[in-house]
Amino acid sequence: MKVHIITVGDEILIGQTIDTNSAWMGQQLNLVGAEVVEITTVSDSREAILSSIKKGFSNADIVLMTGGLGPTKDDITKKTIADFFGEGMTFHEETFARLTKLFAKFGVTIQEAHKVQCMMPNNATIINNDMGTAPGMWFEYGEKVMVSMPGVPYEMKWLMENGVIPRLKEKFKSQPIVHRTIMTAGTGESRLAKAVEDLEENLPAHIKLAFLPSLGTVKLRLTARGDNEAKLNQELDLLKAQFIERISKYVYGFDDEKLEEALGKVLKEKGLTLGTAESCTGGYIAHRITSISGSSAYFWGSVVSYDNSVKMNSLGVKVETLEAHGAVSEQTVKEMVAGAITSLGVDVAIATSGIMGPTGGTDEKPIGTIWVAVGNKNEVKTHMLSLTKSRSKNIEYTGNFALNFMRKFLKER
Amino acid sequence: MKVHIITVGDEILIGQTIDTNSAWMGQQLNLVGAEVVEITTVSDSREAILSSIKKGFSNADIVLMTGGLGPTKDDITKKTIADFFGEGMTFHEETFARLTKLFAKFGVTIQEAHKVQCMMPNNATIINNDMGTAPGMWFEYGEKVMVSMPGVPYEMKWLMENGVIPRLKEKFKSQPIVHRTIMTAGTGESRLAKAVEDLEENLPAHIKLAFLPSLGTVKLRLTARGDNEAKLNQELDLLKAQFIERISKYVYGFDDEKLEEALGKVLKEKGLTLGTAESCTGGYIAHRITSISGSSAYFWGSVVSYDNSVKMNSLGVKVETLEAHGAVSEQTVKEMVAGAITSLGVDVAIATSGIMGPTGGTDEKPIGTIWVAVGNKNEVKTHMLSLTKSRSKNIEYTGNFALNFMRKFLKER
Repeated sequence: MKVHIITVGDEILIGQTIDTNSAWMGQQLNLVGAEVVEITTVSDSREAILSSIKKGFSNADIVLMTGGLGPTKDDITKKTIADFFGEGMTFHEETFARLTKLFAKFGVTIQEAHKVQCMMPNNATIINNDMGTAPGMWFEYGEKVMVSMPGVPYEMKWLMENGVIPRLKEKFKSQPIVHRTIMTAGTGESRLAKAVEDLEENLPAHIKLAFLPSLGTVKLRLTARGDNEAKLNQELDLLKAQFIERISKYVYGFDDEKLEEALGKVLKEKGLTLGTAESCTGGYIAHRITSISGSSAYFWGSVVSYDNSVKMNSLGVKVETLEAHGAVSEQTVKEMVAGAITSLGVDVAIATSGIMGPTGGTDEKPIGTIWVAVGNKNEVKTHMLSLTKSRSKNIEYTGNFALNFMRKFLKER
Repeated sequence: MKVHIITVGDEILIGQTIDTNSAWMGQQLNLVGAEVVEITTVSDSREAILSSIKKGFSNADIVLMTGGLGPTKDDITKKTIADFFGEGMTFHEETFARLTKLFAKFGVTIQEAHKVQCMMPNNATIINNDMGTAPGMWFEYGEKVMVSMPGVPYEMKWLMENGVIPRLKEKFKSQPIVHRTIMTAGTGESRLAKAVEDLEENLPAHIKLAFLPSLGTVKLRLTARGDNEAKLNQELDLLKAQFIERISKYVYGFDDEKLEEALGKVLKEKGLTLGTAESCTGGYIAHRITSISGSSAYFWGSVVSYDNSVKMNSLGVKVETLEAHGAVSEQTVKEMVAGAITSLGVDVAIATSGIMGPTGGTDEKPIGTIWVAVGNKNEVKTHMLSLTKSRSKNIEYTGNFALNFMRKFLKER
């Protein structure tokens, strides 16, 4: 199954919107064994849309189009699609009924502009959109398929998951494909690759390994294709266990789990509460933890101590410590952990203090010098990072490091 | 000047990397009057690259290609480009000398793989890359131009700003184009459009207005084209003043300024220090403020009081208040502001408390009910938001609202 993705929208060409839809679609399609061969972004114009559809069908079996379906632009994209197939347009009563009901719920009377949204190319099979007004449209073209979806990310995702991917799997009867994903943190791609080198070399031809690195984390993905899905699952479960054995100290989770989720699970298992005392990360770690629904069960709070007075008054860091060692020091982050445990009333705490840049370094403590500490009331572990001059990268990397540092601290106890 | 952007990289097609380069390039090109007509992402394969170059030259005057220049992939992209132009490859001594020096600085001996990076198509004009190993390559094709750049964002940005855009302006002697950008917060696109309706209708043909909305903010951009740049600047300064007059209560800044930067400026002007007391935003507002370099001059810290015990112990919220009104209430956020001012020792503070979802609402306080307060030790202002069921959107919107709410509070005093 080869797929060509077409994104329609002037807002992407002028850089107002970053196209995140295509990456998400690429990931999901990859998981069901489809290969994205090209992504094309074109303007809301007839010529550009027409030419991209032609290119798409010449390149691939499946053309997936997003965008160009808002109430104002609606006519261009749909009319162009209808023309490509040599079809007229029909008013779609069901969609009109659905919209009328939807609008009534909000006490709004349906407008002329919304009626335009109910005109559909004659050959379209309508895929209901439970998340918005514009439905998905499925077109057959010989043995090939094209689908048009709205560009709003959560609408597109809902349509892909509930309408498009199941239908594509059915129509193209693709060979079973199964995956195992291992999430790691704390080391780089090359060290992981070295640790599993012989396992990778001995993989049978129908099983592939991919390393997918991010800032401070690396995802390992095993993919198997074949006719017998049960057998593939068996093979991958065995291999997954072998891979984990080699790299167990770096494994924090599976299946795209985030570090903040993995940490939350350990805290819940152990029945412990967490707090943070953040200087250089400025609340970023607390933000990551609280972005997870349900985190209030184990996360009690944070003291963001950007100024030294807050380190002293709210966290009890001693003035002598700050004077003798500076705010960016092992001693300071140790006292911050102790202070957070006391002032927030939590079992364990994370502390950070560093020079994030792009200015502010010294010869002794250059930009990117960051101290991280994790601990409970009896024991504190510390680590010094030497990072980059990029403020945003330093914040993100320190966040990942600190979340994983605490997770390991808890796991070892 | 029409531009076709080509992004080379399997990692984008499988969704491992989101293509943020093209959006940035689209923005920058737009500012110098160039129009991006298409963005194409293709795999690291000869056929795909060759076909995209042909398509690019048929579509546009300028083809800008990013990616496919790492030490391992280097040969495919460059060889394909050379073949497209019917040229051979030459070893580029200057690049080799530069790399040898660069590597020596880090005590590394240059490898065979890096020598491949010094092979260049014969017709390439080399554009030095001060940020990395692979230089930019400029090719002339009749009256048209193609440029190949590495895909690493900060390398591409440096090459665009320092090498590519100045050369394009020179070669295509484009008509002067000038802009004025007005940043607004606190109202939607339609209300702003209404307020400036007659001004927009009376714009001369060579001046255009665009509304560029995000979550809680809208950017207004005036663009003028003509032969006399001084005159265009005069016209736009006059118009900018007229537009601002109409919508002054929503204007927070200019030229892509962020809300956290605008707030920082006001605090510096007034010589005031800021703290936050965050429940539902969980440290996100502190993170936004501290993402700005230099924020330690005015931001002292935050108490993230996710648990009610932290609201009481660290912020002095009364147990009676929590019992009578609940944590998500006007009374609670008022007491949180007072508590933050005292415990952090700051002049002004922001407080938030709400139900972010996707679970946890009640009939009385549905998901998306969020109280925000801003104030000093004498006066506190509050506002209740009724937002969505999406946790991430609620956090981002509340952050934008709260930053702007505090900015306005300070401006009015």
